[in-house]
Amino acid sequence: MRNLRRWMPIFDWGRSYTRATLGADLLAALIVAIMLIPQGLAYAMLAGMPPEAGLYASILPLIAYALFGSSRVLAVGSVAVISLMTASAVAPVVAQGLADAVTAAAVLALMSGAMLVAMGVLRLGFVANFLSHPVISGFITASGLLIAAGQLGHILGVGGGGSTLPAVVTRLSGAGPLNAVTMMIGLGVLVFLWLARSRLKGWLMRAGAGGLMAGIIARAAPVLAIFVTIGLSLTLDLGGKGVALVGQVPAGLPGLALPGLSLALVTALAPAAFLIAVVGFVESVSVARTLAAKRRERIGPDQELIGLGAANIAAGLSGAYPVTGGFARSVVNFDAGAQTPAAGAFTALAIALAALFLAPMLAALPQAVLAATIIIAVLSLVDLPALARVWRYSRPDFAAMAATILVTLGFGVEAGIMAGVGLSILLVLWRASHPHSAVVGQVPGTEHYRNVTRHQVITNPVVLSLRVDESLWFANTGFLEDRIEALAACSPGLKHIVLMCPAVNEIDISALESLGDINRRLMDAGIRFHLSEVKGPVMDRLKCSDFLSELSGEVFLSQHEAMCRLGQLPGCGPAAGDAL
Amino acid sequence: MRNLRRWMPIFDWGRSYTRATLGADLLAALIVAIMLIPQGLAYAMLAGMPPEAGLYASILPLIAYALFGSSRVLAVGSVAVISLMTASAVAPVVAQGLADAVTAAAVLALMSGAMLVAMGVLRLGFVANFLSHPVISGFITASGLLIAAGQLGHILGVGGGGSTLPAVVTRLSGAGPLNAVTMMIGLGVLVFLWLARSRLKGWLMRAGAGGLMAGIIARAAPVLAIFVTIGLSLTLDLGGKGVALVGQVPAGLPGLALPGLSLALVTALAPAAFLIAVVGFVESVSVARTLAAKRRERIGPDQELIGLGAANIAAGLSGAYPVTGGFARSVVNFDAGAQTPAAGAFTALAIALAALFLAPMLAALPQAVLAATIIIAVLSLVDLPALARVWRYSRPDFAAMAATILVTLGFGVEAGIMAGVGLSILLVLWRASHPHSAVVGQVPGTEHYRNVTRHQVITNPVVLSLRVDESLWFANTGFLEDRIEALAACSPGLKHIVLMCPAVNEIDISALESLGDINRRLMDAGIRFHLSEVKGPVMDRLKCSDFLSELSGEVFLSQHEAMCRLGQLPGCGPAAGDAL
Repeated sequence: MRNLRRWMPIFDWGRSYTRATLGADLLAALIVAIMLIPQGLAYAMLAGMPPEAGLYASILPLIAYALFGSSRVLAVGSVAVISLMTASAVAPVVAQGLADAVTAAAVLALMSGAMLVAMGVLRLGFVANFLSHPVISGFITASGLLIAAGQLGHILGVGGGGSTLPAVVTRLSGAGPLNAVTMMIGLGVLVFLWLARSRLKGWLMRAGAGGLMAGIIARAAPVLAIFVTIGLSLTLDLGGKGVALVGQVPAGLPGLALPGLSLALVTALAPAAFLIAVVGFVESVSVARTLAAKRRERIGPDQELIGLGAANIAAGLSGAYPVTGGFARSVVNFDAGAQTPAAGAFTALAIALAALFLAPMLAALPQAVLAATIIIAVLSLVDLPALARVWRYSRPDFAAMAATILVTLGFGVEAGIMAGVGLSILLVLWRASHPHSAVVGQVPGTEHYRNVTRHQVITNPVVLSLRVDESLWFANTGFLEDRIEALAACSPGLKHIVLMCPAVNEIDISALESLGDINRRLMDAGIRFHLSEVKGPVMDRLKCSDFLSELSGEVFLSQHEAMCRLGQLPGCGPAAGDAL
Repeated sequence: MRNLRRWMPIFDWGRSYTRATLGADLLAALIVAIMLIPQGLAYAMLAGMPPEAGLYASILPLIAYALFGSSRVLAVGSVAVISLMTASAVAPVVAQGLADAVTAAAVLALMSGAMLVAMGVLRLGFVANFLSHPVISGFITASGLLIAAGQLGHILGVGGGGSTLPAVVTRLSGAGPLNAVTMMIGLGVLVFLWLARSRLKGWLMRAGAGGLMAGIIARAAPVLAIFVTIGLSLTLDLGGKGVALVGQVPAGLPGLALPGLSLALVTALAPAAFLIAVVGFVESVSVARTLAAKRRERIGPDQELIGLGAANIAAGLSGAYPVTGGFARSVVNFDAGAQTPAAGAFTALAIALAALFLAPMLAALPQAVLAATIIIAVLSLVDLPALARVWRYSRPDFAAMAATILVTLGFGVEAGIMAGVGLSILLVLWRASHPHSAVVGQVPGTEHYRNVTRHQVITNPVVLSLRVDESLWFANTGFLEDRIEALAACSPGLKHIVLMCPAVNEIDISALESLGDINRRLMDAGIRFHLSEVKGPVMDRLKCSDFLSELSGEVFLSQHEAMCRLGQLPGCGPAAGDAL
């Protein structure tokens, strides 16, 4: 049972479920469902899926996450960036004839899910740390711009899409004549949704409505737009006037089935599945963390991997496509008072009802309405001021961000995120191999030793002291060897090098062997090698090796003792001098 | 001119070249050439190349390295591990019919060379740090075992080879009857070479020979073995007795030609070329460093990349295969007194003469002699005591080493080195994302704050202090968020968290945003967030951002000040108390 609770948090919160919790969860579920239905339809269009796939993405995956996820309020389902990544991954597979789009997307979800679960079981959640914030933020901004630009065509009535900015521009500039009716509907809904998002709640509250009610009404604006435009479409026969409509949507619930797998398909989709898994996880975990902290709760990153993995496997088995936790809907869920993951399950129920009874009405819905929903939703992803903020704070971070944005816009989402990850990992490797270190000298009249380039300190031509501020391990031993080699080669009269280790918490075997090499090389060059301020646990480890017996110099408790003994510094007590 | 000197060290040492230097270089060159000729022939057999390719590998590549390399004494040429890696990379390409072995090996050298030069120009030498010592040492030990086992068949007269240990064993156990004559020659040469290596020099010196002369004679043992066995082979017609001979070797110098490239060939060889480049570089740079230090010289890792790259490009253009700096031959070169890279060029000249005049005699040489040469040479690579040494010092390092050995023996060199690199990089990522940190408390009666798990210290239920011992950046922000989240969730009465930053040398934008998130989340949970002991340069950067104005708490100069103000510690002066 304890084991079961470890993997399925439901056994934790389920035991204390009360009627009050139920009421709160039901209300939150209703509000989230109202928000999810239009978004689900819209993102399905963005992903190149049939509309029902967007609804299916918010049924079984939500229940799977409720069972396995660690956040109490995260609302999963289809989101904009993952939908775009799905479209971009599925297109070449369909073009090669490996599978149809629906099968490919389901396999993609299944693979992403399996990868997430595997990472969770192997406790590899930390791998997600290797997307730096500038890379993620640049990627999301660029994706938002790409998505918005891609939907412009739907609003103008010339058809949307395009996986890179040049492709979108080429497509728009080469498109046929605009459809005026589509444009009127598209721009009208766009303005309406924008007002509803930014102003409606304030207007309603000033008109005397309660905050909660005003919020619900404002959230319902996209649903309202759908009903009104369906009504218009049916009465004015917009389809006959050249307006692109959603078309027949089958009513009913998704069937459970393993999508058709083949080795070629799995191989072709594997890189995209991995990227979707990582991007989805990074986004989701940050939302879940922020919301959990508000109630002093915790989320476990490894449990989150399993929860999201389960949700994606459920998506793959039920005709949907990759899902993750969405920011806006989770906040809505939280604000509406959701108490437990059961709220997610109730949302799933509401959306299942919509799939059963709303679906037939959607045939007459103009695609431009969905495009407007998407544009309004993704514009909140675009954070251009972040560029200025990052530029002000750090040039290298800005370079990583700008590179990610440019590659994403120019070459598409996969290239963009891979460039970002590649840059980040290269940065990790570079940074890990360049530890902070400083040649130090004595602050006059004290026993303190500081960086010679930053302070007025006393140095000694015969003794050189180098402080390293990080643990020594294989990634930075090359740097240390280089550094000491350079110091030894540039100082002709040198007789002693003291390595000051106050911040060295660990010396791995590579570093140990490296120190041995340094010791031998310095001996060959007639220089003795000493250590100072070695921490207790590190010293204990060194005693397990031959290093100390081979060391040409000594290990000093303090740097000052080293300088007194080796450099015959003024101000050292006779005791220290005698010890020589 | 300065630019030229930067890329071609020859303009540095060439200007001070004297007649004495020339003499020293010539003597060293002769000794190294005597050593290189049998090794070149033997390693070519190991690599699956015709014997002349082994000689060619020690002609033009040596001259190219002399022009571009930064070590004054490194002797490049074919080495055992790289030869095995070449054999393993070339075999599948030949089986697929993409190219013949000689072309494939030349392309491999060309590609490795181009990659090395590119890494040098981009200053990516630090990437080689990511092969940890246990991985490299495990890989070399396993390769040595594989090579020795593979040559056993040649000694027994049943044909050698096999790229994994199971393959070698299967081959040996399924082989036909042994050839007794081959076995006698093989074992005889093996014992002779072993005695020559371990005893001969001592015997000669005891018999009154000078050290240098005794060394030269001992080094010449393999050449002697070759001449004697060729003589035996011709007089006793060993070929007719079923002894496998080297066969016709064309006399002459290598022609310069670009090997036939095709996209398919380049793609198929790219991963192997990269691995060969990295392994070759890591080995070579460590040899070069050790020898340079003996004369207080320096080698530049990025210049080494260019030197080795040039050597490999030369190998690719002159019908040879990938080369790198060899340990034994470089030590011999150094001991024999080589002063400048010109010694390498003279060695090349001597080997060119051998290729012109010695080649026709090699046809009658039994392969078993070359196999014995290889076995004696590679046994010095096998370092099994290192396993015990590493085990004693560190279990994770041992695990990495053992895994590399097992994968290399079981699945071949490419799988082995990739497993090793993968493990190493995963370890870098893991380590970079788990910075050293400690909850600290006050050492009674002092202003010092130490780790609560290691020292008897005073803590405060309202104020919690966490010290991080590394710079904050994107790789470890997830850890910090987790840690603080856990501390906040487990301490119900907590009102303040102080992050103590005495070892934080840098805060990148990801960490800055993370600190902002932590601050907001703690605020939501009713906890104020403070910093203490922030270094000057870090503080200056923070002032460029909005973080300080959003911070719910304060920035304290010292941890003690923080505790006095927030925790109303006993022993704090009234001034500090008043400041509240």
